[in-house]
Amino acid sequence: MERIAPNPKGRWIVGVDIGGTNVRAGLLDREGHVLADARAEARAMEGPAATLEQVAHVVSEAMEKGGARAEEVAGIGMGVAGRHDSAKGVCIFSPNFAGWVNVEITPAIERRFGLATYMLNDVKTATLGEHRFGAGRGKRHVVMITLGTGIGGGVISDGEIRLGSSEGFSEVGHHIVDMNGPECTCGSRGCWEAMAGRDAIIRRAVWKLQDGRPSLIAERSGCDLSQITPALIAQAAGEGDAVAREVLDETGTIVGVGLSNLIQLYNPEVVIVGGGIAAAGDLLLEPARQVVRTRAKMVPAETAEIVPAQLGDDAGIVGGSVLVLLHLEGRGPGRRPE
Amino acid sequence: MERIAPNPKGRWIVGVDIGGTNVRAGLLDREGHVLADARAEARAMEGPAATLEQVAHVVSEAMEKGGARAEEVAGIGMGVAGRHDSAKGVCIFSPNFAGWVNVEITPAIERRFGLATYMLNDVKTATLGEHRFGAGRGKRHVVMITLGTGIGGGVISDGEIRLGSSEGFSEVGHHIVDMNGPECTCGSRGCWEAMAGRDAIIRRAVWKLQDGRPSLIAERSGCDLSQITPALIAQAAGEGDAVAREVLDETGTIVGVGLSNLIQLYNPEVVIVGGGIAAAGDLLLEPARQVVRTRAKMVPAETAEIVPAQLGDDAGIVGGSVLVLLHLEGRGPGRRPE
Repeated sequence: MERIAPNPKGRWIVGVDIGGTNVRAGLLDREGHVLADARAEARAMEGPAATLEQVAHVVSEAMEKGGARAEEVAGIGMGVAGRHDSAKGVCIFSPNFAGWVNVEITPAIERRFGLATYMLNDVKTATLGEHRFGAGRGKRHVVMITLGTGIGGGVISDGEIRLGSSEGFSEVGHHIVDMNGPECTCGSRGCWEAMAGRDAIIRRAVWKLQDGRPSLIAERSGCDLSQITPALIAQAAGEGDAVAREVLDETGTIVGVGLSNLIQLYNPEVVIVGGGIAAAGDLLLEPARQVVRTRAKMVPAETAEIVPAQLGDDAGIVGGSVLVLLHLEGRGPGRRPE
Repeated sequence: MERIAPNPKGRWIVGVDIGGTNVRAGLLDREGHVLADARAEARAMEGPAATLEQVAHVVSEAMEKGGARAEEVAGIGMGVAGRHDSAKGVCIFSPNFAGWVNVEITPAIERRFGLATYMLNDVKTATLGEHRFGAGRGKRHVVMITLGTGIGGGVISDGEIRLGSSEGFSEVGHHIVDMNGPECTCGSRGCWEAMAGRDAIIRRAVWKLQDGRPSLIAERSGCDLSQITPALIAQAAGEGDAVAREVLDETGTIVGVGLSNLIQLYNPEVVIVGGGIAAAGDLLLEPARQVVRTRAKMVPAETAEIVPAQLGDDAGIVGGSVLVLLHLEGRGPGRRPE
């Protein structure tokens, strides 16, 4: 299929963030500023067509809200959870969307709007955003991780996002930090994600509450353990709750082991930490940094700063706009060898 | 200091391999063929000047043996154990050379021969060699590891060797695979190298022999445990020795855990395994591959072939010649951002 080229005269760019729960589009300028945005349910359970319909809907709405005509838009850039063949615009597999295997994404949107449309894994897209407009500005070697349901990663090396041979580069959540550790949903054991992902964090809190220890976590969750979230734990820790702080301490230790590994393996100038639990800030990052100081030795801890993400929820749509900028500049990621 | 440019008319290239025990130089053509070579003791304990004198000596000898005049040589490329600032030609730190901290290497050789001289970490240099002329030919995404005293690594991503922000990229030996594992010489615990490096391999054999089990390893080492080497174990395993095979099995398991991680993190097309114990071939690689099949899930095992290195002892000097070729082609690694 003939693909549309990005419009070099476009003042605006549309960034899209496609998650398992919500889809969101933003209208941005070329400097990463969000001028307008729109949000809708992903309707992922209704299948790919329903989700793509929602995407088209929020894209239109964001453009309308911002008063942008199609001919003023350079292109559309989308961050999508999962593994993709981004050159073809196909989602190969996404654990977040029930039943998404080999789903064509960008060609449909491209036809619909007559605008060049690009996609990339959501964490890699967020990494592009933080690199150009956030915590990684001006650096040539950046690692970003997102601590959420799982642990995702993106790596900028020599100034460019690295995708590897099949866009599986930096699957950091499934690198093993404890070879005899607990089972992971992926089928391995002791993966970083199995020990510092959402479920592991909540499990740590539940164990402590089951010991009968008093905690804001129990109060706030209405004593219903199924209501506990990493965000709730982070909040309680911020208010000084001892149980919550222990959970963050223990989680930070495992986060630190994984970060030590990423520093030995990618030798970045900066490691950017984003995602839900990262809202806990230094209550999580300080124990992590402490572990990195004692365990990152061959490539020393001091070579890499560990900092919180700056773009928050906007990282996805800002990153989507950077994806379009890179294609405008003739160096879009995921291109094939000449 | 003014640096000399590589000679585009040079038919020959000198490749140099500087290790803690020996230095070796080869005269090569532009296709990675070794026409002549020379070897000498590194005399590392006598200090950097003595080693550099040896290097100059073997370079002269290799050129003489091959009948190459200086004006026919494009340049000199060297692989050196340790961490370097390769643009400056300085070895920042090398555990293999007692007392080498901030030692200037390439400027001295460059002045001596009037030939452009480049250097890079030895394993990264070997990776360049295997990529262009060995087991990684034609691939754009390659991981190489060397299993020796330690475990070294080199990564080609998008066709280029990656150095990271301070040439510490792919310090694979010091990524943690067992966060509660044994102490490592680097100061951390459970590093891959601490569990599958030379000392760990020998320790496994010693424990089994101490249990009184009969083995070729004991016979061949003259019942002197200090004489056991990974090479001896590999040889005994090849002759069917049960204890030696167990050692390779157990080591292969740990090698497999680390390789699973590298596949998740670098998403290569091929993983090349070199170094002393790799001589055991499939007796080591098969158990490793089996572990990779059960543990490399998110980025599946099938995406990356695991193969033995092809260049053997020549990898260093061949890689050195590739380093010069890359500079001739205007894409030498370690260059600074524009």
